[in-house]
Amino acid sequence: MPLLVMKFGGTSVANIDRIHRAAKRVALEVAKGYDVIVIVSAMSGKTNELVGWVGETSPLYDAREYDAVVSSGENVTAGLMALRLQEMDIPARSWQGWQVPILTTSAHSAARFIDIPRANIDQKFAEGFRVAVVAGFQGVSAEGRITTLGRGGSDTTAVAFAAAFGAERCDIYTDVDGVYTTDPRICDRARKLDRIAFEEMLELASLGAKVLQTRSVELAMRYKVRLRVLSSFEEPSDTAGTLVCGEEEIMESNAVAGVAFSRDEAKMTLISVADRPGIAAAIFGPLAEAGVNVDMIVQNISEDGRTDMTFSCPNDQVLRAEKAIAEAKARGDFNFSDLVTDLAVAKVSVVGIGMRSHAGVAAQMFKALSAEGINIKVITTSEIKISVLIDRKYMELAVQALHDIFGLDKAA
Amino acid sequence: MPLLVMKFGGTSVANIDRIHRAAKRVALEVAKGYDVIVIVSAMSGKTNELVGWVGETSPLYDAREYDAVVSSGENVTAGLMALRLQEMDIPARSWQGWQVPILTTSAHSAARFIDIPRANIDQKFAEGFRVAVVAGFQGVSAEGRITTLGRGGSDTTAVAFAAAFGAERCDIYTDVDGVYTTDPRICDRARKLDRIAFEEMLELASLGAKVLQTRSVELAMRYKVRLRVLSSFEEPSDTAGTLVCGEEEIMESNAVAGVAFSRDEAKMTLISVADRPGIAAAIFGPLAEAGVNVDMIVQNISEDGRTDMTFSCPNDQVLRAEKAIAEAKARGDFNFSDLVTDLAVAKVSVVGIGMRSHAGVAAQMFKALSAEGINIKVITTSEIKISVLIDRKYMELAVQALHDIFGLDKAA
Repeated sequence: MPLLVMKFGGTSVANIDRIHRAAKRVALEVAKGYDVIVIVSAMSGKTNELVGWVGETSPLYDAREYDAVVSSGENVTAGLMALRLQEMDIPARSWQGWQVPILTTSAHSAARFIDIPRANIDQKFAEGFRVAVVAGFQGVSAEGRITTLGRGGSDTTAVAFAAAFGAERCDIYTDVDGVYTTDPRICDRARKLDRIAFEEMLELASLGAKVLQTRSVELAMRYKVRLRVLSSFEEPSDTAGTLVCGEEEIMESNAVAGVAFSRDEAKMTLISVADRPGIAAAIFGPLAEAGVNVDMIVQNISEDGRTDMTFSCPNDQVLRAEKAIAEAKARGDFNFSDLVTDLAVAKVSVVGIGMRSHAGVAAQMFKALSAEGINIKVITTSEIKISVLIDRKYMELAVQALHDIFGLDKAA
Repeated sequence: MPLLVMKFGGTSVANIDRIHRAAKRVALEVAKGYDVIVIVSAMSGKTNELVGWVGETSPLYDAREYDAVVSSGENVTAGLMALRLQEMDIPARSWQGWQVPILTTSAHSAARFIDIPRANIDQKFAEGFRVAVVAGFQGVSAEGRITTLGRGGSDTTAVAFAAAFGAERCDIYTDVDGVYTTDPRICDRARKLDRIAFEEMLELASLGAKVLQTRSVELAMRYKVRLRVLSSFEEPSDTAGTLVCGEEEIMESNAVAGVAFSRDEAKMTLISVADRPGIAAAIFGPLAEAGVNVDMIVQNISEDGRTDMTFSCPNDQVLRAEKAIAEAKARGDFNFSDLVTDLAVAKVSVVGIGMRSHAGVAAQMFKALSAEGINIKVITTSEIKISVLIDRKYMELAVQALHDIFGLDKAA
């Protein structure tokens, strides 16, 4: 039988009534002839309660015990979902991580999948079970301890199961109805995308579109798992949500798929650095060691053997960056005349696989920003993305202007 | 190293603060040189919450899923307790049922122990761990499903571990400070017993003294596990609580150890039943099949080949009993002229291993009741117990009179 993976996030199983509604959606797919693997999160709020108790009990906790405690929320939801499906006469059972078993590394609270052997669940499907309800976010280590996968772990569990079981699709039920061309709170002409390519979704996710965790999209791309993001609060429909898929499934597309932005950026410039081989390594090595996530880097043209080096990083890492730079200077790693920090910047990016074949996207972008009188501080480009750093006060304006110029309110 | 089992019930781990206090008690025993196996219940209220969710989800639930859901409460407490002990620099880890593994039958929600292999926990003790915190109330079946043990399961888990690991003692921490000669709410002269024999505890438990579940006492008696019942809300002391132990540890004892009572009794009498071989089987067979727990049975002397048959059962089973009797009569299994039901009776019992060597306990008991003008409706006796059925309105008076006549306010 064809197989589907359906994942329900915390808000979709927040209480008994919502678990019942989620079970009805599963029943619809079973009625269509699918075997279904359901991945569940903890009822919303439960994981935070457990995390709070761990913190109260032991501020510097043992991650193995933390995992044993916080994984219990998903186990509860899995059992309840299986019970509800049985109540609807659908043969179903729950699976905790160790029962599958979901084999992971021993990196507690940040474990990675090693293997998901199919035998146990396949046997149950062969016996006539139609649904396997699997507790998300967890696994078991070679030592037989319970592990958890870290943030977004249940999405990742869903994709991993879809890959392991060759699912036709992996439906991620959440509290938003899909992926948008940009944040509708910033631009009221934002439009829900019917489809988006993995690569585009990755850029949008890492740029702050909170719909899917980067890790689950990466995994989906690697194993070519078709992901559908949709709301569990809308009426069921075959066209609901957004399909995240390979490029080959997207016949025609706009040059730009979406406009992403990030508000919490900072720009730092080292003035008059010696322009010599190894200078970039001398500067960015210590920053990486200090845990600063340097994003964009720009080096000015050299003058008299000296240059300016500009980079961006998250706002809340500026103090750490300044400390690392001061220490490196004190050690004599490099020299500079001044360090200028600008805390009031934002990053705006246009993303789209269509850029590869559409020339002039960058020119169009710069022209649109210029027309609004927005000065560009830093530019970086990749094959499917162009990002600019601008004054934060212009961020909303820039997003709206770019959304308009690339015609994102209209389907391709 | 000598080993102790310590079990903390739901009220003793009701919140983070109480878990911390329980951990301190464990630390005291570790400091004395004991390795400790700690058995924990769920934080009080948590199991009821989970049971409620199961009921809302599926009124006729699958017991396997019920067990998977309700067992999660103990897992949370076990992890938190291990974390707290680590915080106090005591090497500890948590164990869920399947990790030990605690092997049980597949009778979900009423599972029985098959085996508790020591290897995994022993290895950790050998590595220097001082405490194994085990989730109570649960186990794992041969099919790899989570099982639970039914009511009082955590007490039973504690005794089973004490037996399997040859513990010096099994301390049951609860919200009462020990076993009393009778309920202090009925008799203000009730006295806490320092020691009580397994057999006495069994009679008191099954008669409604709610301190320990019958099943855990039975298991303790079979494996000669010394049990100490004590309060987690009193200052730690070596003489706290009541030790439940073998007779050989009780040097001298009163003839009577305690007075038990049960309020919710009913007396039923079949008038003028044919006094023929097999009549008792004809009456009590159908009652047993109907699930009626018949307790005391008395048959009057026969007159003209007919007799009266009286029995007692719990109040709330009277309707079921009447229905079973009416059906048996309709089938022609037996005949009688009238069925008289008395719903206002209570059972009062005196219990004590000393009865074996002290003659005249029954006579003393009947005399004391007579002196108070209390009429005895039914009497049954065993080697260490005498029970009478009386009008419920005299129950408190009878308990007080018996407590006095046997001098239970004074130690032996």
